[in-house]
Order: sequence, then C-alpha cells, then structure tokens
Amino acid sequence: MHGDLSPADFRRVAHQAVDWIADYLEHPERNPVRSRVNPGDIARALPTAAPTHGESLDTMLADVQQQLLPGITHWNHPGFFAYFANSGSYPGILAELLTAALNANGMLWITSPAVTELEQVTLNWLRQLMGLGDGWFGQITDTASVSTFYALAAAREKAVPSIRTQGMAARQDIPRLRVYCSEHAHSSIDKAVIALGLGHDNLVKIPADAQLRMKPDALRAAIEADRAAGYLPIAVVPCVGTTSATSVDPVPEVVRIAREFGCWVHVDTAYAGVAAIVPELRYLLDGVDGADSLVVNPHKWMFTPMDCSVLYTKHPDALQQAFSLLPEYLITNTSTGADTAGNPVNLMDYGIQLGRRFRALKLWMVMRAFGAEGLAERIRYHCELAREFAGMVHFEGGWELTAPVPLSLVCFRYAPPETSEEQLAALNARIMEIVNARGHVYLSHTKLEGRYTLRLAIGNIRTDREHITLAWQELRSAAASLHP
Amino acid sequence: MHGDLSPADFRRVAHQAVDWIADYLEHPERNPVRSRVNPGDIARALPTAAPTHGESLDTMLADVQQQLLPGITHWNHPGFFAYFANSGSYPGILAELLTAALNANGMLWITSPAVTELEQVTLNWLRQLMGLGDGWFGQITDTASVSTFYALAAAREKAVPSIRTQGMAARQDIPRLRVYCSEHAHSSIDKAVIALGLGHDNLVKIPADAQLRMKPDALRAAIEADRAAGYLPIAVVPCVGTTSATSVDPVPEVVRIAREFGCWVHVDTAYAGVAAIVPELRYLLDGVDGADSLVVNPHKWMFTPMDCSVLYTKHPDALQQAFSLLPEYLITNTSTGADTAGNPVNLMDYGIQLGRRFRALKLWMVMRAFGAEGLAERIRYHCELAREFAGMVHFEGGWELTAPVPLSLVCFRYAPPETSEEQLAALNARIMEIVNARGHVYLSHTKLEGRYTLRLAIGNIRTDREHITLAWQELRSAAASLHP
Repeated sequence: MHGDLSPADFRRVAHQAVDWIADYLEHPERNPVRSRVNPGDIARALPTAAPTHGESLDTMLADVQQQLLPGITHWNHPGFFAYFANSGSYPGILAELLTAALNANGMLWITSPAVTELEQVTLNWLRQLMGLGDGWFGQITDTASVSTFYALAAAREKAVPSIRTQGMAARQDIPRLRVYCSEHAHSSIDKAVIALGLGHDNLVKIPADAQLRMKPDALRAAIEADRAAGYLPIAVVPCVGTTSATSVDPVPEVVRIAREFGCWVHVDTAYAGVAAIVPELRYLLDGVDGADSLVVNPHKWMFTPMDCSVLYTKHPDALQQAFSLLPEYLITNTSTGADTAGNPVNLMDYGIQLGRRFRALKLWMVMRAFGAEGLAERIRYHCELAREFAGMVHFEGGWELTAPVPLSLVCFRYAPPETSEEQLAALNARIMEIVNARGHVYLSHTKLEGRYTLRLAIGNIRTDREHITLAWQELRSAAASLHP
Repeated sequence: MHGDLSPADFRRVAHQAVDWIADYLEHPERNPVRSRVNPGDIARALPTAAPTHGESLDTMLADVQQQLLPGITHWNHPGFFAYFANSGSYPGILAELLTAALNANGMLWITSPAVTELEQVTLNWLRQLMGLGDGWFGQITDTASVSTFYALAAAREKAVPSIRTQGMAARQDIPRLRVYCSEHAHSSIDKAVIALGLGHDNLVKIPADAQLRMKPDALRAAIEADRAAGYLPIAVVPCVGTTSATSVDPVPEVVRIAREFGCWVHVDTAYAGVAAIVPELRYLLDGVDGADSLVVNPHKWMFTPMDCSVLYTKHPDALQQAFSLLPEYLITNTSTGADTAGNPVNLMDYGIQLGRRFRALKLWMVMRAFGAEGLAERIRYHCELAREFAGMVHFEGGWELTAPVPLSLVCFRYAPPETSEEQLAALNARIMEIVNARGHVYLSHTKLEGRYTLRLAIGNIRTDREHITLAWQELRSAAASLHP
C-alpha cells in the first residue's frame, strides 16, 4: 500500500482522542501533578526497536493513556505552581489540531501566505493589547531563548557589521563586545552571549537593589568602566518580571543610559509582558517603546499551547542583515508580503530557522476566543490569588515573604526563629519535596541573595482560589510534620 | 468567568474539526496547490485589532475554512513537488492533537519524564532503522537549520574551548576558524557560521565534480592551504542529498581527510537520511558512522508533521559544554534520566531552547503506525516514481535531465536546440509559472552550474503515479503553448 493509512481509522480514533482529551481537561487534577516515575521507567517499558509492520491507531492511543501518561508532569493541573505556568486552553488546542492537519510551512510568503500574514496580523493585535506603540515588527519563535538570541544577534550585527563576513576571531580591528543584564536575569541571556561567540565573561551582571531591580547607577558605572578599558558595550537586557522573583528592572532609566552609549536594549518580558493586557498593569511596560526589541511568550501566561514566543523589534533590518541569505532554490517571483515599511516579508530572513509551523493560528484563536477582556480578567485574577496567598504567608508566624509580589509569583519560605540560613535551606527543600511528592500541588524554588526560597507561580488557566488554599494547607502541614 | 472556556463547546467543535480534517485530507487536491491570493489579501480581510469580548469556536473554525484556507499553499496536495515535501500523515496529526492537549514541557527530565525518555527511545528506533551503529546521542530540534547550528557550535566548542568564556573578538591567542562544505551545500550552514561569529568568509565552499559531489582532493587542498595560512579548520559539512540536486558527497573520504586535520564532521542529510530505511538504499549513509554529528528531518520525507528535525551526535559532552548552564531555579533533586553513558539527561543542556514540546510523540506514532516496512515501501515508491518521471523526460525530444536522479528528486528542463542559456532560463521560468498558476502541481527551481533547472521533488505521502503523469502533461502543455 502507498499513501497514508486508512481515513476511516483516523476519523474514528481522532474522535476518541477528542473525547479523551475533553474528559482529561475537565479533570486534570485526577492525576498527580508531578510525575511519579523513576528515571528509566518509561523507556524500559517500551520496545527497543520500531515495529516491522504497522500497528493500529487504537493501540497507540491506549498506549499513550496507559504507558506514557504516568510519565507526564501535568502542566494542565490546577495545582501546577512550579517554574512559570505553560497552560494550553481549548482554542489553542483546537488550533494546534488544525495546524498539524494543514501542515503549512511558512518559510516564504508564497509557501503559505496565510502563515506569514496571520502572524503579522496577530502580532499587531497582541502589540496593541499590550499597549505598545507603532513601529514594532513581530515574529513568532519557539522559545524566549531563541527570541533573545536573535535580538542579541541583531545587536551584534548593528554594532559591528563586519562580523557577518569576517567573524571575530583574531581581528585587531574590533574590540571585545559586552552585554549587560541584572544579576537576576535569565540564563537564556547567558546562552545567547555564549552561542554568539561573545564570551560568557563579556556578559556583565549588574547588581540589583533590595527589591531585586537592576541599579541604573551600577549599569552606567559598568558601561563607563568597560569603555575606558577598551570594550565596546553593545546591548543591555533589562527584565520585566525576572524568573526568580518577577522583579522589574527600571526600563526607562536603562533605555536612557543605553542610548547615551549606543547600546541596543532588549527587554526580557517573556513571562510578564502579557500582564500589560490588564489596563491597571500596563505601567509594567513603561519605557519599553523606547527599546529596540522585546520578547514575550504567549505560551506562558496567555493560555497558548507550547511553543509560541514572540520577538518584537524596531529594527527588522538589523535582523535581516544578521540572517538573510537567498540561495537560488529559494528565490520566488511572488515572495512579497509587506512589512510596516512596505517591503516584502519572507519570515525565513529574520532568523536561523527556515521551516516555520503555522503557530500564529493558535495565538489568533486564543485572542479571539477569550477577547481582550477575557484575557485581562484571567491575568488579573491570577495576580489577585497571588496577593491572597502572600497575605496568608505574611500573617502566619514562622513564615516569611522573601520578595515583593508585583504580579502572580509569590516568593516565600518557612523561617522559624533561630534557624541558620543553611538549616532554612534544608528545611524548605524538605517541605517542598514532601508537598511535591503528595501530588496535589507542585512548587519549585530559587535563591534570592543567598536565601533559599520557595516559589508559588500562578498562571495556569485552571487554577482557582481553592487550589491556592490547598497549596497553603499542604505547605503548613508539611512544615508541621517536620517541626511538630 | 475564570478558567478555560466551555468544555462542551470544545468537544463539539473539536469533533467538527476532526470531520473537516478527515474530509480535507481525503481530497486535498480539491484546492489549488499553490495559494492564489495576492500579497496583503489575507491580512486585509481580517480585523485590525483583537476583539474585546470572546467569540465562539464555531465562528473561528468557519473563518479558518473561509478566510484562511485560500491563503494556504497545500503541502498536503499530491501535486506538491516544490522544495522538499513536508507531508503530515494521520498518526502524526493525531499525535500533535495529544501533544497540544497534554502541553507537557520537557525542559527538565522531571518536568515530564515521558518527553525526555520517549525522545531517547524513538531516536534510538530511528537510528536503527537508518542502519546507524551505536554511540549516537539524539535530540529533536525544530528545524535542520537549528540542528546544524548546534552541531557547529559543538565543533567550535571542541576546537577552542576558551571561546565559551572569553569569546573570539580581539584575541591574539586564537586563530580564525574555518568550516568547509560543498558549493552545493544548504544555506543553513552559511547561517550557522554567521550566527556563531565565525564570519561568512570563513565558510569555504569546495568545488564539486560533474555529478555535483564535493571533490575530496579539493577539500584536502583547501584545508592544507588554510592551515599554512594560519587558519584553524574546525569542521567539514558533507551533504547526503543536497537541496538543489540530491547529490551525495563522498562521506568516507571526507571523514578520512577531516580526521587527519582534527575537524568535526557534521553530515547534512536532512532530506535524504530517512531513505536509508530502505534496505537497498542504506549505502547512502556509508561512512556516516565515522562522523561526529548528523541531521535528519522526519518532517520532510517521513510523514511527520512540522516541526521535527533530529540531531545525532557522538559527542553530547561537547554540546553540553557549549550550552549547559544551571541556574538555581532549574536545579532539581530528581532530574536524572540516563544517556548512553549513564549520565543524567536534561534536554535543555544540549541547545539554546529551554522549553521543549513533546515532539517525540508524533515521531513514535508515525514509526509505529507505518512500521519499518511501511516506511520503506513508501520511500521506495517515491524513488520509483522519480525514475519513471526521469525516463519520460529523457526520452522526450527537447527536454533534458540536468542532474542524476539518485533519490526522489528530478532536475530537468525544457531545452529546445539552438537556445541560449539566458533564453532557456526565461523559458523554463515561464513554463514553471504557467504550470504553478494552474494549480494542479507545484514545482520550484534551482541553478546547477549556471543552468536554470526545474525541480520535481517527490516525497508527499499522497503522491501517486497519476500525479507524476499529470505533472508531465502540464509541463509539456505549457512548453507547447510557448513554442507552438
């Protein structure tokens, strides 16, 4: 037999899958939130080689449910409070089904005009929802790490255009380049700087104030010292909503300083950017319109299934200069969408990837299904839940908040009196492990200025007040079991 | 209202979507293969801002069908012969639905053990199907461009480890680094070299022989000359199945030469690698087991929906050294899968991306649904169709093959006697445009040693003998209309 498998089988099993998914999503809390398998359990239960002959789709669906599900950590679970939530919603899931079926590849405009144009349309919608001004060119990437990598590639290109052709090694005619971020910035910035060949030592971590925000004076001092020492400062990456504590760097001051020294400003707002959809939180992006690029991830706090990160830039030309190449086999007569300046858009020219899934579809369907108010309401509610949880912690003897709660992340810990930092770290790690092992809620941790800290990150679309209450009960009960 | 939208609505509309998809995939040829919209048509038909209030999923499904479908170029169409086919199949689509619903993020082993372990299991299956030996560590990336970028990042890391910390700029203690590929290599290699800061001038394009294969002698000469001139050769990228003509570089000789000079060998077999699943084509990967890395794309010729590229390497340690970073907020007690050496595997340590979709599910379901023989049979059939089409071209006066046909791509052109190269280019471009505009088949072009060439790339799971015959009729009829 040639061609695809039986259409009738597909239809039957896909309907089964839809029903199974609908049931699963109505009650994700029936599963333990964190997978309970041991390393190797899943792999060992599977055959070591592909079958010679085809198997039925029914068998496979059953195997997903029986063999794989125990190995899934349920990001859909309302008690998922670890890291930052990535929770898919119904319209996003429906869109992913359509995306897979259409299987369009938007590498060039002509290879599916709707992929390129819907991406531009949806990113224009999102930009407006976030209260950003005109002049931003958007593209969807898979992850914030890639968005940031692209932004810094563009910054490198703009600072020293000859790097594209001549590279950096062993050249006397270019200085070492430096990038700046806060000491609380995300590791994706480190990775980008390393991959671009700038050298990890040339990522300068600027100290933060007591509220964990980058100190503008320290930034200025670092840039000035580097300039005096012969370095070329090329970019600053302030963060709006750091991973550890959702602290917010002072973007307006950072932009002002960066402008003085000709640095590119890339704003990392991967998690928190969508909070600007909430009118009263719009201040979060104050000053961002003065930056050169920003990353925001709808797959985090905007209920869009993985993966969907957005890179906005004011300088698509710099991205193009950094990445575009047009071999003969990709030349078309009709490869002309239109960017804001009326130039043709082939999205492959703005990054490393050539192939491009139809990711805009899910973002479009999520924005339409919830509407601006529906999104704002859910994000606002998550912040409200975070404040309530912070309140419970604050008013309970023996517990403390370890950072301000500007958004939907609460940093806190159990801190009985007369306990050393070392003991506190062990104690809280133990509490976290007890809670996580019970399977009703799942938290992760960080360190803030040396203090071991638990993180309760709210952002899952299915999280409600009762789950916050449950988390607090679980935590107190775990602490009590250790300090009876 | 908080939480997700109505489960009942999701269930109802998802069932509708399944039926619509099943109908569509039974007859993708009802649509013109190449979209007929003009630039801006799709965007102009859509609202310029997101709605304030939510809209129904039914409306959205209808809009996909009515507003967006005309802007889709149908990669599912059996007459899609442009570029290389990316065709999804039923098991792959079903898997993508489940992936979106589970929305697991495999950044760490513990954040969904099944994501990491199924990835290792399926890539082990694929490795065996392709006849490769032991010792390969596999990871899924989105595209071949990223796989190649990672491979060359590892090569850079291995050659000059200090680049990670110190970078390359303005250093006297490191030489310029050089990478080698054939003049027919894919632009993704150029992009990787540029992004890594090596400089485009330091990608040396080695001349090919009359069969479009990299000349080993020329490779050796180039490396020797560069060494003598003070460059450090770090990597060679032979291609098994070039984009323009699916020519095959002599991997065994390339490996031998590269070994002499301490170069990393990365094999670009993004399109053709899966052909090694066919026993009689396994020779294609002769010598590849001696290489350091290779990329193969199941989303091309293995009926797996976009995106799914696989990077195999013998040196996962080099990838880890190039990319791994462990901030406090990502440390876990239980983040221990097991790689081939028994070390823990957190897939975020092997690349730039942190977040990771559950892409292995679709690859697993595709391999199981078709089985090794089912995959081999379909790939073999595509090669057979290509030979038949090449036969038609070869035996028809006024047409010529412009390259050998080792796999499923036919390079050819209309070449009436006494026509200049310039006229031939214009003539064939015109023929291609006439054919593509008619909407039954879709071809793309390239240039081979200055000769404008049409490409008929067979790889779509729905392509059958009748579509090849139709393509040939359309081409001859277009030619006749120009030269009556």
